[in-house]
Amino acid sequence: MAEGRANAPVARRSNVRGEATRARLLAAALDTFAVQGYHGTGTRDIADEAGISQAAMFVHYSTKEDLLFQLAVDGHRTIVEIVREAAARKGTAAEKLSAVVRDHSRYHAQFQKQARVVNFEIGALTREHREEISRYRRELESIVRGILIEGVQSGDFRVVDLPMTALALLSLGFDVCRWYREDGIWTIEEIGDRYQEMALRIVGCS
Amino acid sequence: MAEGRANAPVARRSNVRGEATRARLLAAALDTFAVQGYHGTGTRDIADEAGISQAAMFVHYSTKEDLLFQLAVDGHRTIVEIVREAAARKGTAAEKLSAVVRDHSRYHAQFQKQARVVNFEIGALTREHREEISRYRRELESIVRGILIEGVQSGDFRVVDLPMTALALLSLGFDVCRWYREDGIWTIEEIGDRYQEMALRIVGCS
Repeated sequence: MAEGRANAPVARRSNVRGEATRARLLAAALDTFAVQGYHGTGTRDIADEAGISQAAMFVHYSTKEDLLFQLAVDGHRTIVEIVREAAARKGTAAEKLSAVVRDHSRYHAQFQKQARVVNFEIGALTREHREEISRYRRELESIVRGILIEGVQSGDFRVVDLPMTALALLSLGFDVCRWYREDGIWTIEEIGDRYQEMALRIVGCS
Repeated sequence: MAEGRANAPVARRSNVRGEATRARLLAAALDTFAVQGYHGTGTRDIADEAGISQAAMFVHYSTKEDLLFQLAVDGHRTIVEIVREAAARKGTAAEKLSAVVRDHSRYHAQFQKQARVVNFEIGALTREHREEISRYRRELESIVRGILIEGVQSGDFRVVDLPMTALALLSLGFDVCRWYREDGIWTIEEIGDRYQEMALRIVGCS
């Protein structure tokens, strides 16, 4: 008991340090995956980029796949949160859909590096991890379907196939991380604006 | 000269056999990449799947990346051809756009395995090879932009941002290979039909 109390601050300090190391490793993994691809990256590259030894890295992440999975979980949690917040705003279904599509497409431009790794390297995850990521994807679809139902019931939307329309609306945003260029002709705001206009057209509300 | 003539049929026979071996290797690479991912596949897996020795395989493809690149070139040539043919039909811009989006989305469902490898494993290509694939992507965009220009000029389409709309219309089809399920609720024809309806709405023509 006395020993436990004496150790507590040390344990906490070591936890904090552990958090910082994990964050550094994730940032290093993201950067190296983005440049060299998951396939072209070795665990040594990640440890070097993070400025720590491979041995120290393995304390936190035992495989390269662990790092990719953590990045995929973090990325998907963020996007689900963004979409959930946009969908939860007060207003008409059209206003909610606009906010969702605008924020979803903006995210895929603004956090292109993360979105690309998370969307395009996902095939490297284990089957179990891929299924866990699929749950986030289904949650996204379910939020968008909810807005479509609301819009159809209020008479604002004309939608032939509700689940397929939800998938298509999300496809628009996902693919932005493939084609977006930082030095391209559009700002992130313009992409969000155009995409929300297209979304309203898709649901027959513009 | 006499020797050349005598050897010609042999050379031709060996070419034909070479073609068949290359086709077998490409099919084997596609199948193993689709199941195990590019990253999780070894050259031995591909040779085994094709039923030939690794040594014989290296006569045709010296690296795993060569196989992926050939698959990516073949897949992109096919999709460019499909889209070009759909765009070349007689009719209004709306009819052409319908045909393009229908055939493009259908392809990504029907040839899902190929489309997934070609779209999602592309990060594993060398920079040079990735740039070559980008040329096919730009050709696709240019065909769709051509139809949009035609529709805007004829007054059938109302499009705010023509190049971005072309990108979005292609995004819809690309992403079908991510979510399509053979045992899902939609046939490939239904996907094509719904997607062409959504495309016409996006361009303000429905």
